[in-house]
Amino acid sequence: MAVTTAPATFADQIGFDEKLKAARAASRVLATLPSERKDAALRAIADRIVEDSARIIEANALDLEAARDNGLSTGLQDRLRLDEARLSALAAAVIDITALVDPVGESIRGRTLPNGLKINQVRVPFGVVGAIYEARPNVTIDIASLALKSGNAVILRGGSAAENSNRVLVESIQAALVSAGVPAEAVQTIDEFGREGARRLMQARGYVDVLIPRGSAELINTVVAESKVPVIETGAGVVHIFIDETADADLAAEVVHNAKVQRVSVCNALETLLIHRGAADRVLGPVLDALRASGVTMHADSATRLLYADSVDATEDDWRAEYYSLDLAVKIVDSLDEALEHIQTYSTHHTESILTQDFTNAERFLAEVDSAVVMVNASTRFTDGGEFGFGAEVGISTQKLHARGPMGLQELTSTKWLVRGTGQTRG
Amino acid sequence: MAVTTAPATFADQIGFDEKLKAARAASRVLATLPSERKDAALRAIADRIVEDSARIIEANALDLEAARDNGLSTGLQDRLRLDEARLSALAAAVIDITALVDPVGESIRGRTLPNGLKINQVRVPFGVVGAIYEARPNVTIDIASLALKSGNAVILRGGSAAENSNRVLVESIQAALVSAGVPAEAVQTIDEFGREGARRLMQARGYVDVLIPRGSAELINTVVAESKVPVIETGAGVVHIFIDETADADLAAEVVHNAKVQRVSVCNALETLLIHRGAADRVLGPVLDALRASGVTMHADSATRLLYADSVDATEDDWRAEYYSLDLAVKIVDSLDEALEHIQTYSTHHTESILTQDFTNAERFLAEVDSAVVMVNASTRFTDGGEFGFGAEVGISTQKLHARGPMGLQELTSTKWLVRGTGQTRG
Repeated sequence: MAVTTAPATFADQIGFDEKLKAARAASRVLATLPSERKDAALRAIADRIVEDSARIIEANALDLEAARDNGLSTGLQDRLRLDEARLSALAAAVIDITALVDPVGESIRGRTLPNGLKINQVRVPFGVVGAIYEARPNVTIDIASLALKSGNAVILRGGSAAENSNRVLVESIQAALVSAGVPAEAVQTIDEFGREGARRLMQARGYVDVLIPRGSAELINTVVAESKVPVIETGAGVVHIFIDETADADLAAEVVHNAKVQRVSVCNALETLLIHRGAADRVLGPVLDALRASGVTMHADSATRLLYADSVDATEDDWRAEYYSLDLAVKIVDSLDEALEHIQTYSTHHTESILTQDFTNAERFLAEVDSAVVMVNASTRFTDGGEFGFGAEVGISTQKLHARGPMGLQELTSTKWLVRGTGQTRG
Repeated sequence: MAVTTAPATFADQIGFDEKLKAARAASRVLATLPSERKDAALRAIADRIVEDSARIIEANALDLEAARDNGLSTGLQDRLRLDEARLSALAAAVIDITALVDPVGESIRGRTLPNGLKINQVRVPFGVVGAIYEARPNVTIDIASLALKSGNAVILRGGSAAENSNRVLVESIQAALVSAGVPAEAVQTIDEFGREGARRLMQARGYVDVLIPRGSAELINTVVAESKVPVIETGAGVVHIFIDETADADLAAEVVHNAKVQRVSVCNALETLLIHRGAADRVLGPVLDALRASGVTMHADSATRLLYADSVDATEDDWRAEYYSLDLAVKIVDSLDEALEHIQTYSTHHTESILTQDFTNAERFLAEVDSAVVMVNASTRFTDGGEFGFGAEVGISTQKLHARGPMGLQELTSTKWLVRGTGQTRG
């Protein structure tokens, strides 16, 4: 068992193992807790976050101070910051989760076999969910609430940059759980065990049922490569739009602008624009005009640069770039086939969209692009649990096992088969 | 990329990488192949297996000879053996798969969003499936056929003991595929690369979408621990039956006998019998009589041995044993709670069954036992894709991610979201 082979340097081994075991024990209580009890606990968490806001903001100030001292970017500092308004919004989001349908117990398939056995596949919680994320204390509340609603215990590793904030947040959540008669160990942090704790969480097969990394591509890649616990890979998006020969120019200008500019730092934002050579003269002008007006820098292939010299030369790196900024790779292609080939080569299989009026090409793109979400005539920014109507989002899975695309509560569950008989034996 | 960092000793590196790339290319063709084309290819495979039976049996004889020389158990030798009758049965099983519903393209969920976007979640093939198994050439035909029907390319690692059989079988399958206009590379073996090939298959993220190990607990554990490709864990079953205080004695004798004796070498066979102290006098006698009559050796706790002295003393190892033989661990417990605790501690989360007439206890057992299949008053031998009506079985998943319990064609698919719009942008 991985957790019994700790290196001697891991001083807090017993504390760590005890937390995992306590999570498993709590998960058994959560698994059969009725929705109304879980919703009461969620309301208690929302109340407590507001009541404890002064303490939480005080702890958060320590993290912000350290972030400034460590030269964290202003963007990351902003993600780290908690204030009254943000805590109220987080509390309101927790209340929203009470309104969602509890996925646990849903019957998915069932029938009576010829021999009279009644078989029924139902949704059950995973058990213990591990979450590894970075410097975003809002994720602590978010994941804890979604795990609770779906009947899972959760072990949180939020990273050293938000350690003070997360410690106080987990204390508040645990106090709320206890007040609602739910075991405090349903939500635990292992931040105090540092990187070694994260490493051991990834080894904890049998204690942790699934691990969800949220954050940078580097974080996700590390977890995917090192974890022995099953991982749901989320995130990285080298997102493409292909403007086909028949695309409407106004629609293309609006959709491309929205996909690139509306919010640049998210995984469903556009990173590479492909355009059919036959549409370059008619459509590319209006598209690039709109982007330029918002300050987008184009990294373009030579064919595009012949038409629009105010772009930067694209290199191989640009086709692989997840810019998260006002930069866009642009390439002219000769055909739908060349676009499909480019996407096959460079996509991270998150979201791709074709803009076209050609039915056959639209259907080919939908069928042949191997991504979690494939669109026709729509902004890639719609790949989102909220937009899809899930009410809350755990993340966007870019893998093919278990969940693919936006993950809601349902994706935080497993299934089991219930079989009811009257003494049947197999012949 | 793992596949580019081969040790110098891996002589056939280029051949290996080329096979993976060819599988990916074939998977793109398979993904959009209509059912009738896939079914035609399956019929061609069935025909070809029968036509080529002399060649296949000749190659199989080489493996059988090596197995005898290497002192393989008679049980394993029997699993390795192919003859006319077995090949005909395998061909018939391939034909049976043509009758199953193609899971690809099934619409799972869909709606029109308030902004008019039409979203639709559909089943798609994984892409490339890897299978690692041991000395069972029937699995070669089985997995290849199921992968083909579900639109997946497959890379097979069947183990050195069946290398000659598998090579000829894959040649026959490939010839059949080509005759049906399907790329030969849809089904490939990497047996020629030996253990290093298996190791590299487990590292081939991006080339292989999911890996399915089938065979001994040791094989499965190795793949689960070492693979960087997502794995679906199948198999190992320390399967329990709990005879509750109110169980019917005749029913218990029949069900326990069936679960233990009907076929001992399978993962859904009974390994540990728990019985409520209050039923020991009334029920345990008939149950053990029936088992004894079939030559079952009881490994019993001291309480059971007081009543039935012809049993062997159980040790801690017996509670963890997957005997695969006419042996059974037996323990008297004081309560349903003690039974649940024992199962929680020792179960491999495959299948457990309670025999009871008490409604509340039945429902508690169904709710609280954390296994892929949980039964009331039924033999554990029913955990089986064929029995569940799936028509064919890939294996029995004992993990919680993606698939749990018997896996049919549906479990060999992923999903993707299709989004059709008219130029929607996000506000």
